[in-house]
Amino acid sequence: MKAGIIGATGYAGAELIRHLARHPQIDELILSSVSFEGERIEDVYPGFLGRISGKLLKADEVIEANDVKVIFAALPHAVGEPLAASCMEKGIHYIDLSADFRFDDDEDVYSAWYGKPYQFSELHKKSIYGLCELNRQKIKDGASKGPVIIGNPGCYPTGASLGAFPALARAADAALNGSYQLFSYEKTPIIVDAVSGASGGGREPSRSFHYSECADSVAPYKVASHRHSPEIARNFAAMAQIAGKPEPKLIFTPHLAPMNRGILSTIYVPLSEEWRVTPSNAHLPPSKEIEELTAKIRRVYADFYKDEPFVRVLPQGVTASTNRVRQSNYCDISVHADINGSFLIAVTAIDNMVKGAAGQAIQNMNILFGFKETAGLEAIPMLF
Amino acid sequence: MKAGIIGATGYAGAELIRHLARHPQIDELILSSVSFEGERIEDVYPGFLGRISGKLLKADEVIEANDVKVIFAALPHAVGEPLAASCMEKGIHYIDLSADFRFDDDEDVYSAWYGKPYQFSELHKKSIYGLCELNRQKIKDGASKGPVIIGNPGCYPTGASLGAFPALARAADAALNGSYQLFSYEKTPIIVDAVSGASGGGREPSRSFHYSECADSVAPYKVASHRHSPEIARNFAAMAQIAGKPEPKLIFTPHLAPMNRGILSTIYVPLSEEWRVTPSNAHLPPSKEIEELTAKIRRVYADFYKDEPFVRVLPQGVTASTNRVRQSNYCDISVHADINGSFLIAVTAIDNMVKGAAGQAIQNMNILFGFKETAGLEAIPMLF
Amino acid sequence: MKAGIIGATGYAGAELIRHLARHPQIDELILSSVSFEGERIEDVYPGFLGRISGKLLKADEVIEANDVKVIFAALPHAVGEPLAASCMEKGIHYIDLSADFRFDDDEDVYSAWYGKPYQFSELHKKSIYGLCELNRQKIKDGASKGPVIIGNPGCYPTGASLGAFPALARAADAALNGSYQLFSYEKTPIIVDAVSGASGGGREPSRSFHYSECADSVAPYKVASHRHSPEIARNFAAMAQIAGKPEPKLIFTPHLAPMNRGILSTIYVPLSEEWRVTPSNAHLPPSKEIEELTAKIRRVYADFYKDEPFVRVLPQGVTASTNRVRQSNYCDISVHADINGSFLIAVTAIDNMVKGAAGQAIQNMNILFGFKETAGLEAIPMLF
Amino acid sequence: MKAGIIGATGYAGAELIRHLARHPQIDELILSSVSFEGERIEDVYPGFLGRISGKLLKADEVIEANDVKVIFAALPHAVGEPLAASCMEKGIHYIDLSADFRFDDDEDVYSAWYGKPYQFSELHKKSIYGLCELNRQKIKDGASKGPVIIGNPGCYPTGASLGAFPALARAADAALNGSYQLFSYEKTPIIVDAVSGASGGGREPSRSFHYSECADSVAPYKVASHRHSPEIARNFAAMAQIAGKPEPKLIFTPHLAPMNRGILSTIYVPLSEEWRVTPSNAHLPPSKEIEELTAKIRRVYADFYKDEPFVRVLPQGVTASTNRVRQSNYCDISVHADINGSFLIAVTAIDNMVKGAAGQAIQNMNILFGFKETAGLEAIPMLF
Repeated sequence: MKAGIIGATGYAGAELIRHLARHPQIDELILSSVSFEGERIEDVYPGFLGRISGKLLKADEVIEANDVKVIFAALPHAVGEPLAASCMEKGIHYIDLSADFRFDDDEDVYSAWYGKPYQFSELHKKSIYGLCELNRQKIKDGASKGPVIIGNPGCYPTGASLGAFPALARAADAALNGSYQLFSYEKTPIIVDAVSGASGGGREPSRSFHYSECADSVAPYKVASHRHSPEIARNFAAMAQIAGKPEPKLIFTPHLAPMNRGILSTIYVPLSEEWRVTPSNAHLPPSKEIEELTAKIRRVYADFYKDEPFVRVLPQGVTASTNRVRQSNYCDISVHADINGSFLIAVTAIDNMVKGAAGQAIQNMNILFGFKETAGLEAIPMLF
Repeated sequence: MKAGIIGATGYAGAELIRHLARHPQIDELILSSVSFEGERIEDVYPGFLGRISGKLLKADEVIEANDVKVIFAALPHAVGEPLAASCMEKGIHYIDLSADFRFDDDEDVYSAWYGKPYQFSELHKKSIYGLCELNRQKIKDGASKGPVIIGNPGCYPTGASLGAFPALARAADAALNGSYQLFSYEKTPIIVDAVSGASGGGREPSRSFHYSECADSVAPYKVASHRHSPEIARNFAAMAQIAGKPEPKLIFTPHLAPMNRGILSTIYVPLSEEWRVTPSNAHLPPSKEIEELTAKIRRVYADFYKDEPFVRVLPQGVTASTNRVRQSNYCDISVHADINGSFLIAVTAIDNMVKGAAGQAIQNMNILFGFKETAGLEAIPMLF
Repeated sequence: MKAGIIGATGYAGAELIRHLARHPQIDELILSSVSFEGERIEDVYPGFLGRISGKLLKADEVIEANDVKVIFAALPHAVGEPLAASCMEKGIHYIDLSADFRFDDDEDVYSAWYGKPYQFSELHKKSIYGLCELNRQKIKDGASKGPVIIGNPGCYPTGASLGAFPALARAADAALNGSYQLFSYEKTPIIVDAVSGASGGGREPSRSFHYSECADSVAPYKVASHRHSPEIARNFAAMAQIAGKPEPKLIFTPHLAPMNRGILSTIYVPLSEEWRVTPSNAHLPPSKEIEELTAKIRRVYADFYKDEPFVRVLPQGVTASTNRVRQSNYCDISVHADINGSFLIAVTAIDNMVKGAAGQAIQNMNILFGFKETAGLEAIPMLF
Repeated sequence: MKAGIIGATGYAGAELIRHLARHPQIDELILSSVSFEGERIEDVYPGFLGRISGKLLKADEVIEANDVKVIFAALPHAVGEPLAASCMEKGIHYIDLSADFRFDDDEDVYSAWYGKPYQFSELHKKSIYGLCELNRQKIKDGASKGPVIIGNPGCYPTGASLGAFPALARAADAALNGSYQLFSYEKTPIIVDAVSGASGGGREPSRSFHYSECADSVAPYKVASHRHSPEIARNFAAMAQIAGKPEPKLIFTPHLAPMNRGILSTIYVPLSEEWRVTPSNAHLPPSKEIEELTAKIRRVYADFYKDEPFVRVLPQGVTASTNRVRQSNYCDISVHADINGSFLIAVTAIDNMVKGAAGQAIQNMNILFGFKETAGLEAIPMLF
């Protein structure tokens, strides 16, 4: 099968190339780039030499190429709608790694954060948000009816949403504890405190990602004003709705850490009254009851994700860490009851460029075409 | 004045040496080390060559040396009590960088986390917890009566406590908003999500701090079970008491990031009803009301710390970052109202080895002896 | 085919597992570990969870297992000889990643550097040094006669040797310049100035590889006394012999840099009189003649390696860099004429854990068994 | 005394500010910046908050300010000559951190590398190259006659030149070995293989210094074509001239490593016949003779630098490392005889922003004004 990549020379585009080049169902890649049009991809990324070779065309040439069945767009926000429209006309699936198709028909929210109205409103009614674990069936159903636009999730929203999904969606198994709801958010927001590596900033040099400015330092940025906040909130709403509950409040704080890859999300979810335990003295080390509570929550998570190929609920005692998912499409999750017995602390680790971008986009392609969902995504995490 | 350092070859001990060597009131340092007894400090730390020189003695020899007026102990936990006792007998101030004197007479909590009962219980009744901004007057008063034991605060507790202190202690200025309390913790814990550099692990090699294991990765550790948790909780209780309030619940999650120095604490404090604002749509970017709320909170913080030499409440729009306090004794604080208008997000940055260890110990010495509080601590933060 | 890994829990062992787990010809791995005997590999390396699983046995159990056709030994130096002897008896190929079989019958040199005499001298007469590009035919021939011991090269020797190989082995193509020898080492040593990432230090914690000691710093170590020096010298001798020349002198200086993976070798080789050009003023930027000299040398290198699957002679203008070979089995080489027109500067980059250890070991296995030489080693270098 | 800094917001400018702010003889700083004119320095560098404050003026305003006695110019290359001319007219010393005044009247070399002819040729006849250890007397003499222009050395040239200086300048002490010359360069170039941290690239974002491009990787750059090459060569010539010898050939290869600060230079100098020792087998570990040769060379170096306040010749057995000079003005040097007994390997470590830029500029000021040479430069190197 032939695939096209528009915006092939940015980090997400190049990561797509690297993965698709070894995908068993893909035999040809057609690439475009605005910045390097006319050059060759292996000159832009000499690491590809001897392995991947191709001329960088115009975006239109990719769409017009014979027999392209799917287009991945790794473009800046707010420029790709016309390309999506062309693809729909030509019957080509369009998987968009920008934010343009992540907000469905909620144009107000999109335009407030991304600074542009929708150009092709009707496209947004039909596009599907590509968080595979949430919308797998929708994606399959969409593909059965014709060409589909996938709004591939943002990196932070992927790690945050997968970490809270079981807590939000699941009326806890009656067999486990008799409770009907794992968490209670009416009075208390869910807090997502997340740390990203520098590749999330993309390939374009800027002060924030200048080596001497970000090495050997950690800091939050865009506190209370990051545009992944409404995307996470929207996902939380969809997940809570599964349990018949209203949207929880969200507080999201992104941080930058001196590493190349990875997003670590530490997620604080208030437990329901039924689940809480009350230690006699919260100044003492966690009691056995707290450990049992952790085990109980862990079982809910493990059960929830038992058929997911890319979500690993870690054994109790192992904490999620970005260096154990690097280069893979995994989302690792560890769950912990807090020392007061009243909150779940869920920790997720993803590679922001794989599960948080290119890998999930390919997972979406695999679902769209009925390929094995793990095809092309079999990399075992790096050791170090 | 002559000072002694027991445990001089660990990271905190060496940092003490480096700072005290240029302290205007200190003219001689007497050093001890168990691991390197008989060797010279400049052979253990060749960076000191030509600047600092001294033989490493036994601990007892330091205490017995003529005219030592103050001893800094940078020892492992649970071994220093007998040395403290000797110092008290000899009339020498004892500033302890271990946890041994951080818990006053709360032996149950100390022994549960550190695995040993108190040996000299009476010492703990008289020791003073050395968080200077909280206990400055106590320290001065103590010194006026004779030799004093200072329990120098842990690194995480310093960053966490200074970030929450104004919110906890202050009935907000009536002139500002008519409210009596900045935050409301009855129903909701204060969450401290903190990230430390690797020097916090000390000088002894271990898997956790082996370069290939921790480089290029972020992960939490000891989730819900770190022994700085009760120290922070105890500080929060003392601070809330100033406002006549009971102890808030605390959730503390430490993380390790690939940097040498620094602790970044992101602290979530629920606002009181009076302070909250309710945005019409929390999916939209923060409204002007949220910015004004931030400004209001910031004024409370700036006012609270206006006379503190080492706490900088940053201008609105500047976010605390570990790389702007490195090598200095500053605690930088930025405050932010969350997007829902219901929480304060306070971010603090300290150098874990300075304000989080050696620097604060010297600040305590300066207070004890009536030196200028900034003496020996004038370093301007590194640029990068 | 079934393969065994002895010493599976060290870094090289785990890297072998990660690669062999996806090798098309390997369907089962039998693992041993002294430190973690009885545990499971996925508990030691939780990144393997869901992908690789296996109990850690004793070394003997691996050799005794039914139908194991090849054993990889990733053990400390000077302990594996008895295992090699057992394998030879049982007809199993033995690929040794330690230094034990790198010195053929030169026991004096081996024992002087590694502190132990040979235990099974006769094994060393038959073992083959596994630098594939140098000894491919020997390895094939050896395998045709029975079980073979491969002394897998050291990491530094791999990068250094491949960078100098064409210069040493090749009487330059008469068609190119009429010269008979590219370089002239009679009067001047070849200098190899190399930089390694920290994974080269292995998994065992030590001061040198403690994060705070090696982060944000570069330094040489074991200057003029690293035990890879005689291994490189011996390779240089073998390569020079191809051109009928005596062994050149070698100066080798290893450095440690704050990165996880990679070895960068900058190699200075004096050019022969015939190749030299003399700039009128060496204080001026390199003249066109110098660029042409670079192009000429580059053609020699490119021609020399034209059939090698894992050596990439980079286009002129592209300089070798460790981040373009990470996770791959490539050795990238860039060549440069020095500003005086009298030296070749050859720069090589390898991933020390792949081409410098586990990858080359698998390449050796592929040659031994007549598999496609790139089998299991197709990873495209990481982007960042 | 009042000092001015032109180009105050680049890294070198800011480092100057940080050091001068605590210099005992400086009581006021006047600052300019093209990029941030009209803003305040503490807004550009919030780490300065509460410590350093000042409006950023135009360059002319700094020169015209009352009573400014010295101007530091930290500007891009090839723009500062008119400012230097103004300073000379006004009787103000001008210390230039760019390359503009490093080449004396060798305009050909300067313009070939920096792309511009001299504008004020006569200034270059009178400027002094500010490598303090080489030209201290010249600088003093110059200052005694009126205002002086100092061409502050480049970062690489400082580390390279100080490492080779004793070998080049010194006819070895007859008492030591009866030889007349330490090294022999007639047939063999001196090779300088150097590694720099990323701050050397300055504050302006670019691809080369983009975090994801340079983290976790080492590579050379501008091989055989870096413009510090002629500056080093020129210094080597001046140093060799002291011993009555012609200029040696130089090969210089700069590398970039993932660290913030520091330059490590590994320098290979051929020994003279008289100094060489010949090991019986260079494949064996270094013999006692080699160690004695190292000791002999070390004595020459230690003696040569015995009065230098900022050069530390390390004890035998300690190797120079960038992390032991960070934040200080030291140049650490370790010397090693190579395993063949025929080369000196001199290793130097400096902080590229201090001894390699701002620190050396202040050292030059101290010499010009007859201040204590270490004034304002007393920082003890960081521990980690």
